[in-house]
Amino acid sequence: MTAPKAVVLVSGGLDSATVLALARAAGRECYALSFDYGQRHRAELTAAANVAAALGAAEHRVVPIGLGGFGGSALTDTALAVPEDGSTGIPITYVPARNTVFLALALGWAEVLGAREIHIGVNAIDYSGYPDCRPEFIAAFEQVANLATKAGVEGSHFKIVAPLIELTKAGIIQAGVAHGVDFSTTVSCYQADAEGRACGVCDSCRLRRAGFADAGVADPTRYRPG
Amino acid sequence: MTAPKAVVLVSGGLDSATVLALARAAGRECYALSFDYGQRHRAELTAAANVAAALGAAEHRVVPIGLGGFGGSALTDTALAVPEDGSTGIPITYVPARNTVFLALALGWAEVLGAREIHIGVNAIDYSGYPDCRPEFIAAFEQVANLATKAGVEGSHFKIVAPLIELTKAGIIQAGVAHGVDFSTTVSCYQADAEGRACGVCDSCRLRRAGFADAGVADPTRYRPG
Repeated sequence: MTAPKAVVLVSGGLDSATVLALARAAGRECYALSFDYGQRHRAELTAAANVAAALGAAEHRVVPIGLGGFGGSALTDTALAVPEDGSTGIPITYVPARNTVFLALALGWAEVLGAREIHIGVNAIDYSGYPDCRPEFIAAFEQVANLATKAGVEGSHFKIVAPLIELTKAGIIQAGVAHGVDFSTTVSCYQADAEGRACGVCDSCRLRRAGFADAGVADPTRYRPG
Repeated sequence: MTAPKAVVLVSGGLDSATVLALARAAGRECYALSFDYGQRHRAELTAAANVAAALGAAEHRVVPIGLGGFGGSALTDTALAVPEDGSTGIPITYVPARNTVFLALALGWAEVLGAREIHIGVNAIDYSGYPDCRPEFIAAFEQVANLATKAGVEGSHFKIVAPLIELTKAGIIQAGVAHGVDFSTTVSCYQADAEGRACGVCDSCRLRRAGFADAGVADPTRYRPG
């Protein structure tokens, strides 16, 4: 019996590494997908390749997309500063329609591969400022997937799997540790340096650091001096 | 009073040129968006730029995406032949999840621009083999757009406008002619040559040629000798 195939969105960060580990533990043959969209934190892409290899993905692809050309986000537009003050609301690091674009491309690859699952590490708790991390968004996209595709029309059902959506950051870290993720290879920082070392002060670093503390797990993050 | 902004997907073909002309006639400030996804018929991109300029788009962007790397379609995979036999069913020229990917990227640009409309030339009549050209797909994507975005969360409503969805090819041609489209600059052929000249035998050429005949409009298409 062959293992069911799944496309897993792997960013190089902590959350998606945990998703990949969970998918592997559930017996999926995993096709890891990353995007080069002009993000500032390009060390993520190196981390994504390392994570995919370490956790036994069958294949890892990096798809270039011109999302950065639209501007409008501190993650792709170098004219905007990454916030370091823990402010609330929809953050300036929100990339317009990012998860919609990522899931759409994952859907295309899934259909070609004959995969019927797309796994994504969205989380509605710690990142509640991002509208495209909510359960109702995931459900709506699953409906699009089933209406958009040859496979859907022919009766297969696509499933968008979001196993972290209701977990806290500490819960994600505990799940990852339980499934063999080496978090020292992951990069979450919005402004990591070329070696993947974290700033320690952006929103993503704050959440990650607090998550390790809450989980009672030693923080293996490599912070840069300063 | 400023004109409402709209992102208009412009492929360089007959249908999307008509959509752009209709949007301009409806008073929209139009942002034309095309994609370089490894399609065989690259003369489309030149045609798209010409169409956008001729019909008064405020801006035209071409976003590169790595869709072709997934394979699985005769439009992007040179190992597969473009059919010339008018066969039925979901055609091999179907590109997996193409309209989902295109609409997702259009949504990202629309949000950055402050546009609340995305216009797309899908048609459920002449291209009924493509699942992502049906009204139920468009409605499902509109729901995703409103759940995925900061604008949607903050109460604006995104609208996916598909003015050709129930028209015949002849009806589209008549609408285009009535709104000043010069169809000689458009390229529909799946295997156009570098000068944009059509093969005359692929499914897209067949539909287009029959459309001009049915509309009682002289066919201005440049066919290549052979």
